[in-house]
Amino acid sequence: MNCIIAQSGGPTSVINASLSGAISAGIDFGFDRILLSLNGIEGILGGNFREVDKKKFKATKAKDRLMTRPSSILGSCRYKLADDLKDPSYEKIFNFLKSENISVFIYIGGNDSMDTVMKLNTYMEDNNIEGINIVGCPKTIDNDLNGMDHSPGFPSAAKYIGSTLRAIRADVDIYDLKSVTVVEIMGRHAGWLAASSLLANHKYPKELVNLVYVPEMDKSLDELMAEVKAKLDYENNLIIALAEGFRDRKGDLDKVTFSNAKDGFNHKVVSGVGQRLADYIRDRLGIKSRAVELSIIQRTSTNISLTDAKEAFSLGYRALKLGMDKTNLIPVLRRKNQDSYEVYYTEVKPSEIANKEMKIPKSWLKDYDTFSQKMISYALPLIKGEAEVHYEDGMPVFIELGEFIK
Amino acid sequence: MNCIIAQSGGPTSVINASLSGAISAGIDFGFDRILLSLNGIEGILGGNFREVDKKKFKATKAKDRLMTRPSSILGSCRYKLADDLKDPSYEKIFNFLKSENISVFIYIGGNDSMDTVMKLNTYMEDNNIEGINIVGCPKTIDNDLNGMDHSPGFPSAAKYIGSTLRAIRADVDIYDLKSVTVVEIMGRHAGWLAASSLLANHKYPKELVNLVYVPEMDKSLDELMAEVKAKLDYENNLIIALAEGFRDRKGDLDKVTFSNAKDGFNHKVVSGVGQRLADYIRDRLGIKSRAVELSIIQRTSTNISLTDAKEAFSLGYRALKLGMDKTNLIPVLRRKNQDSYEVYYTEVKPSEIANKEMKIPKSWLKDYDTFSQKMISYALPLIKGEAEVHYEDGMPVFIELGEFIK
Repeated sequence: MNCIIAQSGGPTSVINASLSGAISAGIDFGFDRILLSLNGIEGILGGNFREVDKKKFKATKAKDRLMTRPSSILGSCRYKLADDLKDPSYEKIFNFLKSENISVFIYIGGNDSMDTVMKLNTYMEDNNIEGINIVGCPKTIDNDLNGMDHSPGFPSAAKYIGSTLRAIRADVDIYDLKSVTVVEIMGRHAGWLAASSLLANHKYPKELVNLVYVPEMDKSLDELMAEVKAKLDYENNLIIALAEGFRDRKGDLDKVTFSNAKDGFNHKVVSGVGQRLADYIRDRLGIKSRAVELSIIQRTSTNISLTDAKEAFSLGYRALKLGMDKTNLIPVLRRKNQDSYEVYYTEVKPSEIANKEMKIPKSWLKDYDTFSQKMISYALPLIKGEAEVHYEDGMPVFIELGEFIK
Repeated sequence: MNCIIAQSGGPTSVINASLSGAISAGIDFGFDRILLSLNGIEGILGGNFREVDKKKFKATKAKDRLMTRPSSILGSCRYKLADDLKDPSYEKIFNFLKSENISVFIYIGGNDSMDTVMKLNTYMEDNNIEGINIVGCPKTIDNDLNGMDHSPGFPSAAKYIGSTLRAIRADVDIYDLKSVTVVEIMGRHAGWLAASSLLANHKYPKELVNLVYVPEMDKSLDELMAEVKAKLDYENNLIIALAEGFRDRKGDLDKVTFSNAKDGFNHKVVSGVGQRLADYIRDRLGIKSRAVELSIIQRTSTNISLTDAKEAFSLGYRALKLGMDKTNLIPVLRRKNQDSYEVYYTEVKPSEIANKEMKIPKSWLKDYDTFSQKMISYALPLIKGEAEVHYEDGMPVFIELGEFIK
């Protein structure tokens, strides 16, 4: 009984916690060989994989150390499986899985990866392939995965963003002059990450983050500027959290800002909207205005939510356990109730996740106070606890793949 | 016996540790009133100050909590005192100091602030003012202060930069394709911060940071590109650490990149060189190339070196103690020897620091290996230990000025 695990899509701070969970389940449930595909599905297509050395895994404490090793230790890919199931890549994948006697394949990834899980399961059904279960395990910092309370990886990104905005507030307040700081935060279609900046306001008598703009908002540039001006009446140093995918209603910022480059999944690559808004504000209001881009550190920070790391581990563990009996499923977590944070685990079909996006509810966006309250009460329980990163000589030390493979 | 303390220049992660040291000395040595000027010398010019409540300072554990409160809690300014000592601002300052019976004034800041300390002392000499001692306390993330082993604030920035580069390496390695990531790091004239990225390579068998460019280098864009190409022969995902102030010999990058904006001290404001270099590499080599700007988080990170925090505290403490007997001095720390990190404290005249810049020695820049070895052995002892940040509800909590003033 062998299994193979792969990681795909953009990295998160806890995607290796899910890997740790899946490997741990593989050991607990007596799998003979636990294989790790390199660079997602590409490793399976190209026969590029490694095998877990169970003794080394234990000896190096890999189970725990993977919990705080940011980014995908197995590598990733942006490979999109052909829509046409007659494409030769499908046969290649299943030939590989059969040749290695794989009975469970776990794909840890976001909605594009769940599209892969869905297609592979459809192919198995169409071709009466049995004895192989293909199960997904969710992750994304964007928090846009459907069918679950929140996406693993999001809480740690939210914790980093909230904490960083608190520090940025300490920084911008030092000069006695009017200023605007636009903080550009990841999120192309969903504004969950930008909204996480609101965590900075929790329990502070003063607003640390003054305005948040997310793609879910329908707002003209004039309306935005009116809000900026109104806040500047009583706030010297304005902080605006801006999702990279925010666009004003008429697209005035858009026209001059967004690049036309597209990634492998035909997503538009956006960047620079923060700088453009900062320039626009400086130009219109004649005050100091600058942009700060949080950049890729949002997804690789070692400022990891212990809650997130534990949940990601559990989902990886459950994915492998699920794969022993069933296929075409994804374990997810949901909130039992809103008042006290308690989760339960269940599973959904990949078709409920693939190519869909969970957005911030419209009702949250009624006004800034509602948005702030809703977002803080939603996100605060998720960022609880600090996963302990191991330091040596003053530097964080991350586990390497070589430490626990044959 | 009263004293006043002010902070100036750009913030650091431990500038409040120096404040904590100075206040603690003020309490230990029995000062009647310990005043805190807001926004540097501007607070003294405008009579805008607060008074430490010694009981509250103890009750709120402010001494310890200031150690991990990033950015200048007293605010800062970019006010440059006139060169002409007949300027009315001087009289205004001393009228204020006399009216509040100040016998010691501590100015925590960088080389521009030490220029202020120097001028005020010259004014006192010229005008036979006695009974007031004006002493500086050094800080800057840039590590360019003359006369000391390293500038307080630099170690924490270096720790953040080294750690972040290690995480960025984990991020860039996930895709199986050629790429270049240019990480733009603060430093206009001295490259210490960009060079700190080399800490990421410590004890790793593989280079995590492949190339570093600092303002101290004399290099043409062609030479730089030849180095990039040579590294790409054996490295898939190149990481280049680039000081914001790096300029190629002929200024080819400079012409299209640097803004002409100037700050209050007539320093040229530079930005965007990272993006420009990334664009240039993509254009010339036809590979994926992007820029990441570490931005202001370099100086406000809560990833604080315990060594730095303790040293900054000691310098603040010594500054106030020094001010009880002497004027026109700045406490500094120096390294006893290179092999084992041991420091001793001494003091220098502000004229040795003001308007001067300590740069990376030319001999370190002979080749990449030499640079790497020299920089790591210099910076590694400075980043030792992690100052513990207090978290509540998953968020870092910073002390507020209001908690320990009257």
